[in-house]
Amino acid sequence: MNFPSLSDIRAAHARIQPFIHRTPVMTSTAIDQIAGCQLFFKCENFQKVGAFKARGAANAVMKLTPSEREKGVATHSSGNHAAALARAATVAGIPSYIVMPSNAPEIKKKAVKGYGGEIIECEPNLQARESTLEAVVARTGATFIPPYDFLDVVEGQATCPLEFLEDQSDLDILMAPVGGGGLLGGTALTAHYLNPQIEVIAGEPVGADDAYRSFHAGYIIPQTGPMTIADGLLTSLGTINFALIQAHVRDILLATDPQIIEAMRLVYERMKIIIEPSCAVPLAALLANKERFAGKKVGIILSGGNVDLGKLPF
Amino acid sequence: MNFPSLSDIRAAHARIQPFIHRTPVMTSTAIDQIAGCQLFFKCENFQKVGAFKARGAANAVMKLTPSEREKGVATHSSGNHAAALARAATVAGIPSYIVMPSNAPEIKKKAVKGYGGEIIECEPNLQARESTLEAVVARTGATFIPPYDFLDVVEGQATCPLEFLEDQSDLDILMAPVGGGGLLGGTALTAHYLNPQIEVIAGEPVGADDAYRSFHAGYIIPQTGPMTIADGLLTSLGTINFALIQAHVRDILLATDPQIIEAMRLVYERMKIIIEPSCAVPLAALLANKERFAGKKVGIILSGGNVDLGKLPF
Repeated sequence: MNFPSLSDIRAAHARIQPFIHRTPVMTSTAIDQIAGCQLFFKCENFQKVGAFKARGAANAVMKLTPSEREKGVATHSSGNHAAALARAATVAGIPSYIVMPSNAPEIKKKAVKGYGGEIIECEPNLQARESTLEAVVARTGATFIPPYDFLDVVEGQATCPLEFLEDQSDLDILMAPVGGGGLLGGTALTAHYLNPQIEVIAGEPVGADDAYRSFHAGYIIPQTGPMTIADGLLTSLGTINFALIQAHVRDILLATDPQIIEAMRLVYERMKIIIEPSCAVPLAALLANKERFAGKKVGIILSGGNVDLGKLPF
Repeated sequence: MNFPSLSDIRAAHARIQPFIHRTPVMTSTAIDQIAGCQLFFKCENFQKVGAFKARGAANAVMKLTPSEREKGVATHSSGNHAAALARAATVAGIPSYIVMPSNAPEIKKKAVKGYGGEIIECEPNLQARESTLEAVVARTGATFIPPYDFLDVVEGQATCPLEFLEDQSDLDILMAPVGGGGLLGGTALTAHYLNPQIEVIAGEPVGADDAYRSFHAGYIIPQTGPMTIADGLLTSLGTINFALIQAHVRDILLATDPQIIEAMRLVYERMKIIIEPSCAVPLAALLANKERFAGKKVGIILSGGNVDLGKLPF
């Protein structure tokens, strides 16, 4: 597979820079003491649309040809990618068509509409999502931008660790959550280019551990019946991302839902920032495996902050 | 009254700098659009102990003479000042005695103990707090550090707008909440020194509006029976602070509890940061008086982020 080169990733960063935040890196003495290592948090919860997904979506949209642009973009998603794609399209002045299940939370539909996306509802199952998307693409000629298993999206997510390692180059370990694997794949690739000594380690929920099982099996084992509070990590690993993970990820560590909630609470209380459950998974996995990180400099990508405040798990 | 000079405030900043965070200034396109002006938020919710109070307490402790230091410091408080003083004392290697009402929340007692303070419990009324404090001071010889009506504390709080105006010098308006008035007094003083064109405007809860009434009456009207979710702003205005407010504050604007909760929610949802209700009051007051701020550059001091996550008002 023809993965993006470091100069491709740098070019992507220059391409999307006007449309994204350079997010800050935060630290917490209190959490360092609890963890027994030195932590650096890259705050993508402060990113546009509240998640790193703004990067991949912006990169994919800005790489469209003029004739592709005219017809807009489409995807099926009920999560952060939907909002990110709608926003990127609006910023570029082109239409976006977002296929969402009819039972998607009102708050997520509102976000997509707020960013200027056109929502097409479908029955809440994968088959309906895919056939509805096909029909939308056939009708509009829009370009399908998949949420994670797509090189331009991975290249965009790879700009997040690029900024992170520019700001904090001396990390021993770099952690990200893994769902579809777009962020983790991009992170592994950038870290490999900039400093192959850095161990890239993923955090994954016990209740959606397809990446863990695939990583150890050596082939993709699809996710079936995931059960976890980390609702951004329910999807199966993408093939592009699996190849990157096999090549450049050192390990995948698991965390239970109570551990994820505890880590989330720790970040809220000690850092005074809002993160979504999926975002707490790497810290939870670290705290469940402290000895492995003892005394190290560990970077953690806080992936997003979109959470229903009325339904916090504490 | 002999208020701190600008060079006193700068000296205070140099004195406490090793013990506090230089907190970031954040912005939010989404909230700007809602407010109709350009907002800059100085994030003291990220300060040590989670509130600007770390500044005044550190300044007061670091200014003690060697013989005063030996005997430690004391105060009565159940809020952020208690934690801030305990921490400042521990950092300086001296004891701190914190008089707290017996019905203070367990979480606040835990914070004070966690920072190394010795808690002395008393009956939950002002008379008992004062007599217990007197007894503690008589027994230990500790120096009483009041929470706000005290020049060294005001001088410490004045370092917050000093940093803010260094980072963002072109503000038209600067806002802070007002309870006892330590932060507001310090803010008014620093703004006056650095740029007297800046309008300093306070936000105060309708349910604890003694500063508003005192400001318009021209003399201090003590707070009686305050009723507001902004539990950091229940106290009466201090005399030092009232003098500063009379001299250098342009106006005090009120906000109702529903407006405060709405502003708090806006900051959580759009900025992904955690603030306490008291901290949301200036933004709430601004949103209740939008026309006054239209098109201006407005700095808002986010005063603190210590909130019981299990009891959020949404």
